[in-house]
Amino acid sequence: MLTDFYEITMAAGYFEEGYEDKTCVFDMFFRRVPDGGGFAICAGLAQLIESLDNLSFTEEDISYLRSCGCFGEPFLDYLRSFRFACSVWAIPEGTPIFPGEPIVTVEGPAIQAQLLETMLLVNMNHQSLIATKANRIVRAAAGRPVAEFGARRAQSYDAAVLGARAAYIGGVASTSCVMAARDFGIPASGTMAHSWVQMFPSEYEAFKKYAQLYPHGCTLLVDTYNVIKSGVPNAIRVFDEVLGPLGIRPAGVRIDSGDIAYLSKRTRRLLDEAGYPDAGIVASNSLDEYIVRDLILQDAKVSSFGIGENLITSKSDPVFGGVYKLAAVKEGGVYMPKIKVSESVEKLTTPHRKAVWRIYDNETGNAMADYITIFDEPVDTADGITIFDPLETWKVKTITNCTAKNILIPIYEQGKKVYTSPSLEEIRTFCAGQVATLWDEVKRFEYPHRYYVDLSQRLWDERQRLLKTLSF
Amino acid sequence: MLTDFYEITMAAGYFEEGYEDKTCVFDMFFRRVPDGGGFAICAGLAQLIESLDNLSFTEEDISYLRSCGCFGEPFLDYLRSFRFACSVWAIPEGTPIFPGEPIVTVEGPAIQAQLLETMLLVNMNHQSLIATKANRIVRAAAGRPVAEFGARRAQSYDAAVLGARAAYIGGVASTSCVMAARDFGIPASGTMAHSWVQMFPSEYEAFKKYAQLYPHGCTLLVDTYNVIKSGVPNAIRVFDEVLGPLGIRPAGVRIDSGDIAYLSKRTRRLLDEAGYPDAGIVASNSLDEYIVRDLILQDAKVSSFGIGENLITSKSDPVFGGVYKLAAVKEGGVYMPKIKVSESVEKLTTPHRKAVWRIYDNETGNAMADYITIFDEPVDTADGITIFDPLETWKVKTITNCTAKNILIPIYEQGKKVYTSPSLEEIRTFCAGQVATLWDEVKRFEYPHRYYVDLSQRLWDERQRLLKTLSF
Repeated sequence: MLTDFYEITMAAGYFEEGYEDKTCVFDMFFRRVPDGGGFAICAGLAQLIESLDNLSFTEEDISYLRSCGCFGEPFLDYLRSFRFACSVWAIPEGTPIFPGEPIVTVEGPAIQAQLLETMLLVNMNHQSLIATKANRIVRAAAGRPVAEFGARRAQSYDAAVLGARAAYIGGVASTSCVMAARDFGIPASGTMAHSWVQMFPSEYEAFKKYAQLYPHGCTLLVDTYNVIKSGVPNAIRVFDEVLGPLGIRPAGVRIDSGDIAYLSKRTRRLLDEAGYPDAGIVASNSLDEYIVRDLILQDAKVSSFGIGENLITSKSDPVFGGVYKLAAVKEGGVYMPKIKVSESVEKLTTPHRKAVWRIYDNETGNAMADYITIFDEPVDTADGITIFDPLETWKVKTITNCTAKNILIPIYEQGKKVYTSPSLEEIRTFCAGQVATLWDEVKRFEYPHRYYVDLSQRLWDERQRLLKTLSF
Repeated sequence: MLTDFYEITMAAGYFEEGYEDKTCVFDMFFRRVPDGGGFAICAGLAQLIESLDNLSFTEEDISYLRSCGCFGEPFLDYLRSFRFACSVWAIPEGTPIFPGEPIVTVEGPAIQAQLLETMLLVNMNHQSLIATKANRIVRAAAGRPVAEFGARRAQSYDAAVLGARAAYIGGVASTSCVMAARDFGIPASGTMAHSWVQMFPSEYEAFKKYAQLYPHGCTLLVDTYNVIKSGVPNAIRVFDEVLGPLGIRPAGVRIDSGDIAYLSKRTRRLLDEAGYPDAGIVASNSLDEYIVRDLILQDAKVSSFGIGENLITSKSDPVFGGVYKLAAVKEGGVYMPKIKVSESVEKLTTPHRKAVWRIYDNETGNAMADYITIFDEPVDTADGITIFDPLETWKVKTITNCTAKNILIPIYEQGKKVYTSPSLEEIRTFCAGQVATLWDEVKRFEYPHRYYVDLSQRLWDERQRLLKTLSF
């Protein structure tokens, strides 16, 4: 029932029209990388699969729909005995993805393929958004661990928990969200809030008690009153008095307000002078990839970052605009490609059931381009492959000594699952490896080089042919 | 378990320290209105209550926490037999709220009040964010109905469903999200997607079939190919051929791309000329309060708006920065007020357990100011009330002929619920009524007049006293 009302009115319409067995092909794709980046990170497939595995309508759902007064009993009976029968192809989680290419393709009875639109989009849009943002922040941190801290500012519960999952795919090292840690095996992190410090008669006593309780990995929050004059001196005193005799090295301190560049340098010096050059400094407080990058440029002495609201909501660009559009209808066993023009050129769709090939350079292993073909077109790179820009068609490039990998892979075949999701750890590792195949130019935060996503000649011709049938 | 890891480490610390019976007071408040607006709308309390009613730790939770290796068995036993025992006060849903005032106050055993921080914040932050944004858009639409369309771009499932609830509180007329409609009784709306139009041999046939199936409230999506040359003429033909003979008036058409101002005027003329001056024009496509306002200024002929991603994520400002801070600790039955200074002046907290009074002008019924006092301070408006700005203390104002209403009302008394949430419909009506009590100057979208939120002399003195004890 996590769907839009019009999916159900349309499904009922297809049912009335006898279209329940008419086979359609829908593509999910996106048009723009969030934050103007050069690529996004695909995520959400595991939850999409979970939703598809559990797709059904309860009696309560049926009763509600009946009460709407616009659905006939035969259609409600159809929903009651609903059995998922679509084929689904998808790009695996953790893969860098680009505008215009199919991320998920669904082929199946019109009524079914239509019904799952909203659910598919909400899963893929949300997690791809957060994985993409996390990957930007992790790259800005240049090797320093990033902890996801945002649950309290997430857009409700699932956004906190599944957002932490997506952030982990994108490369964060840990989450503060206990439910995400428990459900997905993500390392949990977190130390104390200001309230802990305030709860005790003094900052020193609060730190001391904390270090006694949690001597291992002890990180003290030093900005409740004043970082340099109070927090860090009290932390050092407690490291000396409590951890020293136990022979345990402190993890470090956390700074959550003020100017991090300045305060981290002052703090670093105090810790070093006190004999704690190995103690880390965690910085938090409304950080994002730009501030993290600038802090590092300014030589801030930060050893790890805690990122809250800017990551868990992708604050600077909180929408992943994935859409789900009809690409073909099967008639007499033959795909009839479909196109949508609309009033805005950027909303033009690419028709037909398609395959997505990623072209890797054999020498460097780098990804050179994505090449979209009609689903059954042979792709042979033995003599190199010639691609051209689908809009500026005079821009032609031949890539030699390369390998083409089909990245849109089967997930369901006519309702039967044929795919097993890798573990979250595997997805995270795969993501890091795939991001490493991209040119640095594509990874720039602002005005990155546009990665090539080109159509095969046959697919391009097909699109032109359809456009001509639609002139106004 | 929807909590941050540090809430549990701190709770365990309080437990070890024998603080489980130490009574603390925490305030949830926010520091900045999203989008630079003059006020926010409070929402999320019903879900917070639901969460508090169900607060417990399962054996699975306990096992997970044990596996973390840092919690003792006595603490885990405590969690196993957890029984909520806090008192809670809150500002009712739908109320306009302002920075710096307590929205929710929790008083109870340290360990409990601490544990519920994340869950409280995620509920109140998310729904207050969306209710606030919805209210802005609804005010921009100046009486034209606004439909919430955003599920597919929501930050996961709860964000779609609870976001629709919050949007309804803020004033939208309907939602496209079936689950929200079913669970909260919000009117469902939605007609067709472009895929419906593409599925049929022609736009005309797609419209005709739809009108035959859903003749009542029939709205046709006219921009799949070309609004003026194809969509509207086909819609009119179908209105004539299908609805005319049935004696049913069409609901209208929807435009989802292109320039809405231009297309809506052209469409209006075509519909009028064809004898359908009563047919509505629904506009969608990345609208927000600014575009809605500009469209109306440009005399766009739009009768209702469908708003997607910009509403359901509050795209232009997707974080409601509510925080939860310690305000007092009870020692020997007496409240010891607590303050947090930190390195940033805007993070200064107001200490003590407090009451929030809204001062209404008796003549106009308008809200004049909020007046925050120590919880047990008498407030008497018989001779007028004198307030002063807590920072610019020379700005003094005396309000006469007014009534003070305590808006922070009891929800739980020592774990016992003493409040019944109004129906969603009642909350929505209450919200509209309360927004109407605000001056237009406070309702401006940009650079609104700042509504007064002042402290009583006693509370201000108390804060000054605490600040003096903390000079560095």
